[in-house]
Parts: sequence; C-alpha cells; structure tokens
Amino acid sequence: MKQEHVDQIAAAVAAVRERKENGGIDNFYFVACGGSQASMMPIQYMFDREICIPSAIYNSNEFNYGTPKAFGERSVVVTISHSGTTPETVAAAQKATDAGAVSICLTNVEDSPLWQAAANPIHYDHGKDAEESDKSGTVLLKLAFSILAVVDEAAAERWEGAVAALDGIKDMKAAAVEAYRERVEAWATANKRAEVIYTMGSGVNYGEAYSLAICLFMEMQWINSSSIHSGEYFHGPFEITDFDVPFVMFMSCGATRFLDERALAFAQKFSDDVLVIDEADFDFCGADESVREYLAPEVLGAVVRTMVDKLAHDRGHDLGVRRYMWQMEY
Amino acid sequence: MKQEHVDQIAAAVAAVRERKENGGIDNFYFVACGGSQASMMPIQYMFDREICIPSAIYNSNEFNYGTPKAFGERSVVVTISHSGTTPETVAAAQKATDAGAVSICLTNVEDSPLWQAAANPIHYDHGKDAEESDKSGTVLLKLAFSILAVVDEAAAERWEGAVAALDGIKDMKAAAVEAYRERVEAWATANKRAEVIYTMGSGVNYGEAYSLAICLFMEMQWINSSSIHSGEYFHGPFEITDFDVPFVMFMSCGATRFLDERALAFAQKFSDDVLVIDEADFDFCGADESVREYLAPEVLGAVVRTMVDKLAHDRGHDLGVRRYMWQMEY
Repeated sequence: MKQEHVDQIAAAVAAVRERKENGGIDNFYFVACGGSQASMMPIQYMFDREICIPSAIYNSNEFNYGTPKAFGERSVVVTISHSGTTPETVAAAQKATDAGAVSICLTNVEDSPLWQAAANPIHYDHGKDAEESDKSGTVLLKLAFSILAVVDEAAAERWEGAVAALDGIKDMKAAAVEAYRERVEAWATANKRAEVIYTMGSGVNYGEAYSLAICLFMEMQWINSSSIHSGEYFHGPFEITDFDVPFVMFMSCGATRFLDERALAFAQKFSDDVLVIDEADFDFCGADESVREYLAPEVLGAVVRTMVDKLAHDRGHDLGVRRYMWQMEY
Repeated sequence: MKQEHVDQIAAAVAAVRERKENGGIDNFYFVACGGSQASMMPIQYMFDREICIPSAIYNSNEFNYGTPKAFGERSVVVTISHSGTTPETVAAAQKATDAGAVSICLTNVEDSPLWQAAANPIHYDHGKDAEESDKSGTVLLKLAFSILAVVDEAAAERWEGAVAALDGIKDMKAAAVEAYRERVEAWATANKRAEVIYTMGSGVNYGEAYSLAICLFMEMQWINSSSIHSGEYFHGPFEITDFDVPFVMFMSCGATRFLDERALAFAQKFSDDVLVIDEADFDFCGADESVREYLAPEVLGAVVRTMVDKLAHDRGHDLGVRRYMWQMEY
C-alpha cells in the first residue's frame, strides 16, 4: 500500500483512538449511497459481530433527513463517494464534521467536496493500472481492521493479523477467478436473455448481493433484479421460484452459512438456473480462519465481476452505458 | 382494546421499566421474518429517531447465527410470528429468554411455541371479525409508544398522547381507503398483466415498501418485485425506469419526505405507470402532528391492501394460494 494511503488511514484511526480516550465513542455510522453503501455493509456486519459499540448503516439522505437521535460528537461517521461529489454524502460528512463527530471519508478524488467535508479523508486508487492493495476494497478493510484493533483492544493481535492478511488479497482474487471463470461465464451466456435475475446472500455477503442487484444488474445492465436475504427467502420471496427463474447465490464461509445452505437446497430443488459461488471454495492464502469470513466478500466481488463482464459482452450492453446517470440533472 | 391485550402490554412494559431501573437497557432488537419483520421496521425507525438507546432489526436466523456482540441481559428483544410457530423466531425468543434479556413476543396464537418461549407474550386478534384496536398493527404501536413513554420519560406525555390517538386508527383507515379506493383499484386493473412491479419508500415507510414487494407481490401474486429505498433510487435502481415500468410510490408525511419527493419527480418523468399514495393526504382524525408520521404506515397498509385485493381479483389469483408455503417441509 502506498505510503500516503497508509498515513491517511493512520490519521483516521488516531482520531478514533483520541475520541475513545477523550469522551468515548457511542456509535459508528456508515453512510453512503448505492454501491458505496453496499461496500460498507460487510463492515457494519463485522462491527456488529465483534464489538459492543453499536453501529448502523444509512443511505446518505436517510441519515441527513431522518438523523438518528444518538448522533453527536461521540459518533464516528464513515462516508464513501467514488467521485467525492455525491451531494447527499458530502452533506452527511459535513454534518458529522459540524457536530464534532469523527468524520472519516474514502474517495478516489483528492480535494473533492467530500474530501473537504470530512476531517479525516482517505484516498484510494482505481482503474486497471491500480495495485490491488491501493483499491477501495483493501483500503476500506485496512481502515476497518485498524479501527477494531483500537476499539477491541483485547483482540488487537487478531486485527493486526487481519491487516497483514490483506497482502494476500490479490492472490486470493486471482485464485478464485481462475477457479470460477468457466462456470460463471457459461452461466452468464446462458442467461443473457434473462429479464429478471435474483441475488441471494446473508450475513457478511448481503451487501454484495445488494450491490449485484442494484448496481450491476439494474444500473449497468437494465435487468430487473432484487437482492433476497437468505433468511427471508422462505418468508415470501421463495414463491417466485420456478424452473426458469435465475438466482445468483452467495454461500458464506462464516457465521450465517446455514441460512445460505437452507435457501440453496430449496432454490436448487425448484429452479434449474442457480449460479452458486461458495466462499468455502476460496483459497485464503493462509489467512487466519477467524478473519476469512470478513475477507471473503472482497474476493467474491472479483468472481462476480467476471460473470458480469461476460454477461455485458454477450448482451452487447457495455457496463458504462447509462440512460439517466451522468446524462442529466436529477 | 380488550383488557387481556391491555394487561399483556402493561406487563411487557413493566418488564422494560424494571430492566431500565435495575441494570439498564443497552439495546432494543426487533427480530422476525418476512411480513412480521417488515411490520417492525417503522418501529425501529421511530426508536432510532426518538431515543439514544440503539435499536436494530434482524431476520430471525440472522440474529440466531450472526448474533450481535452487544446482545445480553441488558437487551430487550421483541419477536413476532403470526402463527407462533416460525421455528427461527421461536429460537430467537428463547435465546433472549435464556440470556436473561427482556423477551417480548406478539402472536395471534396463545400457548404457541413462541408464546412459550418469550417471558412476556402479547396476543393480538386477526380476521374480518376482529376489532381494529385489537389487531397486530394497533397492538404493536401501543406497545412501542408505551415503551417510549418509559424510556423517553421527559416526553412521556407525548407518547401517552400517541397511545390515545390509536383510538382513531379505524377511522383513519376508513377515510384513507375511501379517498383512495377508486384510484388504486383502477391502477390495479391496468397493471393486472404486469410481470414486475417496483415499490418505493423511505424512513418510516420502507418496511411497508418491503412488505408489499416480498409478501403481497412475490409471495401472494408471484409477481417479480423489489423494494427500492427512495434515497437509493438515484444510485443504481433508477436505470430500470422506463415508460411502461410500474412503481408504487409511498410519500411520507414525516422526516424523509424530501427523499420521496425527489424520487417521485424523476419516476413520473420517465414512467407513465406510477401509483402514488401520499400520507400527507390522510386524515389523522386530530392526532398530534408530532406522531402522525408513526401512525401513517398503519393507515397506508389499509390503502395498499385495497389495491392488492383488486389486483388479486382481476388476476384470478387468490391471495391465499401458495405453491410452496404450507405445502411442504423446507
């Protein structure tokens, strides 16, 4: 990881430590829109599982207009916007700064409005020439693990080990893509005329299921979609299952795996079109078992992207095409 | 409200008060599946907005397997299952009881497994002969307002006023259904061949949007659906908007109304098929302005049901038909 990224993360973590020692931390709020919000869902899940300080995730304007009563100077607010210009996310970061909360942001654009609004901005790289270790996923995980090392001091060693494991992310992704490429590309081709595709996951993976539905299928391919929580499947959504209804199913290697197994067994019984991506298959390159669950969605994302690239190619619908986004004011 | 329901709510609230005074309350967890989970989403939103004690909502097995670290004897856990038999919800209530938490349940069936598992069970009535004041929505709101009167003591008068306002729920629903019947039934008829319908809402209404998508459309009509958060619409989902894509849009009369207005303006510009149900139109029968937002989803539900009844009729697909639920083990 580039030294500037290391330093920016260190400064943000120092601000969290300072607040912990002076006044204390009441809560963590993860605030963003769309894919950026989705990318923090696994982080919120991890915090919920690992520490007693409450954490919650909000769409930016939900946070701005429906502000939680507990928000204040003992809050830590983490915002993300790739361009750094998403107005409602900038407003949320500014709101946090103005309230005297610890305001941390992640963005690809230095000196952007978001960068200016948050007291503790962190940059990440993007694009085909970027190193894996400097991209948003790795930078966010390093920030999150480093905050846990401060807040969950008794387990600091575990969280420092998790940070060290991030060195293997590039290899983990390459291995998973290699293992899954043939299967996911064949599935994409077979489903190129699908008018609706459901995604399913639970626990640490729900964010990835949400992101695949709203960003990759709906936004970038104009395919109808919905993310179903594996635990909710049997309480309504499963009635739309039929032999020709496509599902993309994420199997967690963590705490909620049973939910995914139960949903998968049913979906495979009544649909002939289920793509399964199982994190238990992934090679975590020696990362400690206790943190694999939290690394898994980042690796999963690379496999998902391989499938979507093929789908976009076969449909002749470039992932960069939009009819509304960037085309007009709204 | 029947005296037995009043007494059961009073006992549950007394348990909350006792825990507040002896040990304190760290958090509120609302835990259920499908429509029962959805029915508590507005309650969780209200708690988030009105008190500093953190609250969160979980699918039952997500709670059982991915249990939050902060769960313990200073937790209050509220579970709901209509039949009282949903195994994962029964397990969650039992988990709460075993941990020494305040375990409250709502169910239509006395002495059901859920009733046995929770230390503080509350019954509600159901069906066409039931009084509005004894049905699940009113019973849940009375419980929630009464808990707030204890936890948010400084505003106890406001919450007691909210409880009193529940006497008007029957009239509020009748007035809203009367005002909207023609519009929503015409929309249902026009959309009887729709293969996908999106629902949209924010803040206090997101649960109603979720419930309409997964229970009424997917489960009871086998129509593809997804609930879109109004604040998320512009960050992905809006790209599926087209002139013939149907949306059901809920307009809040509360804090997040701006999010709904912004989403509606866009949706109406590019789709000719948006059904708008606006809570600002509702007659709240004199209920104080400060609690109308929290009464609104219950009233909204009656309007939604009017639309869905007509849709089911016109499609010849009775709302009670299932192909998997109740038909087999899963």
